[in-house]
Formats: sequence, structure tokens, C-alpha cells
Amino acid sequence: MNIKLSEGSGGREMNSLVRDFRKILKVTGEWKHTDNDAAIVKINDDEYVCMTSDSFVVDPIFFPGGNIGDLAFCGTVNDLLVMGCYPKGLSLSFVIEEGFPKKDLDKILESIQAWSKKTTIPIVTGDTKVMEKGKLDKIIINTTAVGICTKEEIIDREVERGDKIILSGGLGEHAVALLSKRFDYETSIKSDSAPLVEELTMVKKQIKQAKDPTRGGLAATLNEFASKYNAIIEIDETSIPIKKEVKSVTKLLGLDPYVLACEGRFVCTVGKDKADDVLKELKVFNKDAAIIGEVKEIKSKKPEVLLLTKIGKRILHEPSGNIVPRIC
Amino acid sequence: MNIKLSEGSGGREMNSLVRDFRKILKVTGEWKHTDNDAAIVKINDDEYVCMTSDSFVVDPIFFPGGNIGDLAFCGTVNDLLVMGCYPKGLSLSFVIEEGFPKKDLDKILESIQAWSKKTTIPIVTGDTKVMEKGKLDKIIINTTAVGICTKEEIIDREVERGDKIILSGGLGEHAVALLSKRFDYETSIKSDSAPLVEELTMVKKQIKQAKDPTRGGLAATLNEFASKYNAIIEIDETSIPIKKEVKSVTKLLGLDPYVLACEGRFVCTVGKDKADDVLKELKVFNKDAAIIGEVKEIKSKKPEVLLLTKIGKRILHEPSGNIVPRIC
Repeated sequence: MNIKLSEGSGGREMNSLVRDFRKILKVTGEWKHTDNDAAIVKINDDEYVCMTSDSFVVDPIFFPGGNIGDLAFCGTVNDLLVMGCYPKGLSLSFVIEEGFPKKDLDKILESIQAWSKKTTIPIVTGDTKVMEKGKLDKIIINTTAVGICTKEEIIDREVERGDKIILSGGLGEHAVALLSKRFDYETSIKSDSAPLVEELTMVKKQIKQAKDPTRGGLAATLNEFASKYNAIIEIDETSIPIKKEVKSVTKLLGLDPYVLACEGRFVCTVGKDKADDVLKELKVFNKDAAIIGEVKEIKSKKPEVLLLTKIGKRILHEPSGNIVPRIC
Repeated sequence: MNIKLSEGSGGREMNSLVRDFRKILKVTGEWKHTDNDAAIVKINDDEYVCMTSDSFVVDPIFFPGGNIGDLAFCGTVNDLLVMGCYPKGLSLSFVIEEGFPKKDLDKILESIQAWSKKTTIPIVTGDTKVMEKGKLDKIIINTTAVGICTKEEIIDREVERGDKIILSGGLGEHAVALLSKRFDYETSIKSDSAPLVEELTMVKKQIKQAKDPTRGGLAATLNEFASKYNAIIEIDETSIPIKKEVKSVTKLLGLDPYVLACEGRFVCTVGKDKADDVLKELKVFNKDAAIIGEVKEIKSKKPEVLLLTKIGKRILHEPSGNIVPRIC
């Protein structure tokens, strides 16, 4: 048995591989959320350390709206932010192919520095390795973030029947921007890659659960929510924000926007009485933010995500297959 | 200008590249030792968070005495241990080439699990990416460690003239074991890859500075010590522990054992009155441990590392050039 591309795609095959890893690694002890993107551990009366790590292998490394450096900063920072924890520092490790142009490396570093300055999250440690020409496709970056937070700050509150599901902006923009370089088409769409600092700072006290829909997209995130609460979640297709151009490009390429990775969006659950307020606040940052559905049931025997379409209801499954390799 | 192999070798060229990175990244703020392998930040009255990150690109991935998983666990854990901080958790990120055998991945994971169990340092979070066949040479692992410690625990005490330099075991064993696979020779030498948990727990209160001589080897580590304290350090060549077989293999291959990466050794400075005690304790773990020299001067205008040989003194320079690519 050999590793397949699909096992890195963020869908069913990857989740199964990671479960195999966990069986061997036997993760135990005082850390929580170790099956999540970020893990957390209590260090004293009311302080927690949060940690998350991601490696970035995006191809191409430069694309409309960003580069691998933007993704490496924002992707990892967002994984802590959606937990409710503000990163205190970020490590930055490069593996570079021999012969890689230094001017490209400088551009990548400048992007990282710009976000670091804007968010005041410093790069505090790192590592640099070089592999012989032909042994690596250009460059890989790993970033790991660590943060300290209080219990109150952690976004992990009990979900109830009737809670609303909000998406903070349009789907598919990162993928459409990135693929324009691979498939050589013109597009006005830019990657949505950005740190979710301001949006989450604004609404973090009012929301119950949050997750950034990266690999596996909205479909993976909603299925994760459903499985965590044994919930039945119903989403209204007509309310899901997808820009017109994204719709037509994905249709042309035969891609499903619900499984494509976003790099600057989050999905959250909110009590129904607070949903309109949260939406209003999120619309300040992105006018495409929308209430896309609600939690129909919790503790169900058959947790699932249902998609209301013009022609009826269908199940929105956990994605599987290759989706788009090396999207981040 | 393009990236050269030597810029990942742990010597002068890499240090220069990392200085360039730091110019762009403008690392500032409350974190300390950000120019070191591990960075540290105060989080409350007497608690510090420590963080270190490393990517492993070793070739071959299996070698006498270990595999890339052993290195990924031990290398990163050691970078915190030599700071005096016991890791609280480790992240584990894989980038894997499509087609990589799952049984090899299992072996790597089992090695990591064995160390995790032995040291009680859990793997708490991670990431898995897959690159298309031919785009990556087999597998890359990033591990990042985070720990909490008190000020008293941090091994960073003022160095004085007369302090002794101790090396915890023989040089060159990892390199000789690894290269036996690349150059196809037989050897009884095994990689020294191991976490420095017990040795450092035993002596951490008595030593002043500690560092694991990985890429760039003993030469890089001693030059770092010299430059930190503007010190003149004198090392006695006859006292440096190098196994007979390591000596003959490195001679045959034309390699300098002083610049080769160790993966389970550390170098420390100790007050002269405590040196014999520390040595005695370290010899329990490795009988090759030795006092190899001393600090002759501090605050010198011309910091350097001098090597006393049978035919006179010579400067032991910061290493440069390719050394051994992908040794860790």
C-alpha cells in the first residue's frame, strides 16, 4: 500500500490516514482537541497554551492575491484564531530546492513580514534546509503558531438546535485565483488568503464554534461540525455566497465550490437570537458574509449535512478523492 | 542569485542567509533568543514559553541506528532541552511523496511513538500533505516543540574565564552511520540520535551554557559560544572523543569530524570547580564524555576557537561549504 494524492486532500481518505497515524502515535495525556487543527493544554489556573502546525506545498507559489508566504502566515494563524486564541509567536521553517531564486525568497519573506507587522504576531524561530536540485519542487514552508489564552476566550460553546450557521465570505476564490496559473486563464478573482484577526476579534464572544474551511472546503467543515455534535445541519444552497465569476470558472473546470479550500474565511455557529447581529458585524469586513443554514437537530442518531437545492434536499457528503492537489 | 546547497549546511553561508532573512523579517518584541535554535518569552511572573522548530530532509531516511522519525523527534526535543526547558508537546507535520510505502511510514511513526512514550512528550497536533510523484524525494518531516519553564531552569548563566568545555559523547557517529548507506560501506557505528533527557536532567543545574552540535558540528557550536561571549576558547585535540572506526571512515571519505552533525550529543560550559563532577555524571550515560578544553578569555577583542594539536595551535573556524548535504 502506497500513499495516494487523495490522502493529502483534506477529505475522507486523509482523515482515515490521520486516524491510522493516531492509532500508532497513541496521543494521550492532558492536551485537548488533539484531533483538531489546534491543540490546547492548561498550564495554570486560568491559562492555556494553544498550538497548531501546517506545512505549505502550494503550486504555483505565486498567484493572484498572494504567494506561499501569505498562505504560510495566514493559514496557521487562522487555525489558532478560530479556537479563540491570539498567536503569541510563529515559527517559520523553509525547505528550499537548490537553485531557487533569492529574489523569489525575498518576495515571500516580505509578504510574511507585512502580515507579521500588521497583526503584531512575530516570527520567533525557524529553520532552513536546502535539498539538491530536482529533489524538491521549489519550496516548502512550515509554520507553527503558539498562543496563550484564558478558558473564557476559547470558542467552544455548546451548540443547540436552532443555531444559525454563518459563512464569513464567498467560497472558491483562492482556488479560482490559484488555478488560473495552472490552467492559464484570465481572472479578476484574487485569493482570499488573509488572517481572520479583525473579524474574529469582533465576534468571538458571540459565536459558539468556528472553523476555517481550508482543505476539503465548506463540505468538510460542516461535516466536522455535524459529527462533533451528532447534528443534522441544513444549508440553503441559494444563500451560500459564491461570486459569479467563481461560479462560472468552477463550472467550466468541473469543480465543486463546496469542497474547495478557502484561505481567509470562517464558518461559525451562532445562537439564533444573535445571528443577525453577528452577520451585520461580519458584513463590515466582507459584504458577502451570509447566514447559510441552521442546526436542525443535535444528538441525532444519523448526523448529516443536508443541502436544500431548487430541486430538493440532498446530502452534502464529506469530500473524497483528489479534489485539487497542492492548493495550499 | 540562487540558493546554494551550502546555504543549508549549518555553516557560514547558512548563517549569512538567515541574517538576511532576519533583516527582512525584522524580528522584534518580547521574545528572546530569537537568533538561537529556540526562542523564549515571559508569560507571567516566573513562567516562560519556549519554542523551537526543525524540518528534516535526511537522505537516506533509514540508516543504522535510526530513521527520519527518530531525528525529527530527538532533534527538536533536544533544541528545547539544551535551553533547560522540558517540552510539553510536539507538533508533527509530514510532507509525503505520492507512492511512498505505507509500511515505511508506519516504521517512522513507530519510532516517534517509542520516543514519545519513553520521554512522556506527546505528539499533540500535526499536518499531512502529499506531493505528486517526482516532486519531492520521499518524505519531509517538520516537528515543533513547545515547553513551559521557570527562569531558574533556563540554562543561560554567565560564562567566566577558566570555565571548562565538556562534550557529552563521541563525534561523527551519526554521519558515519548515515553515509554508510550513501557510499555503501559496512560499519558497526550507529547514529547517536537520541533525546538528551536524562543527561541534561542530571546536570542542568550545574552547567552554564549548553548546545547540541547538529549541522556544522562541534566547530559551529564552539564558534557560537565564542562569539556570544567574545571568548577565546582553547580545545585540546587529543581530548576530543572520536571512536577509532569513526576516525578511519572520516579520513577515508575526506571528512572533518569537527564539522559533522551529531544528533544525540551536547557541548556545555561548566565552572572549573564543578567540571569533574559533571563529567562523572555524564560518563554514566556515555563513557566517551570528556572535558575537551576551556574558556581562556572573555570579552576579548578577537574571539576565536583555538585547537591545540600535536604540532601546535590552529584556529578552528566556523565551518563553510557544502559539508554533508541532508545529514538531518
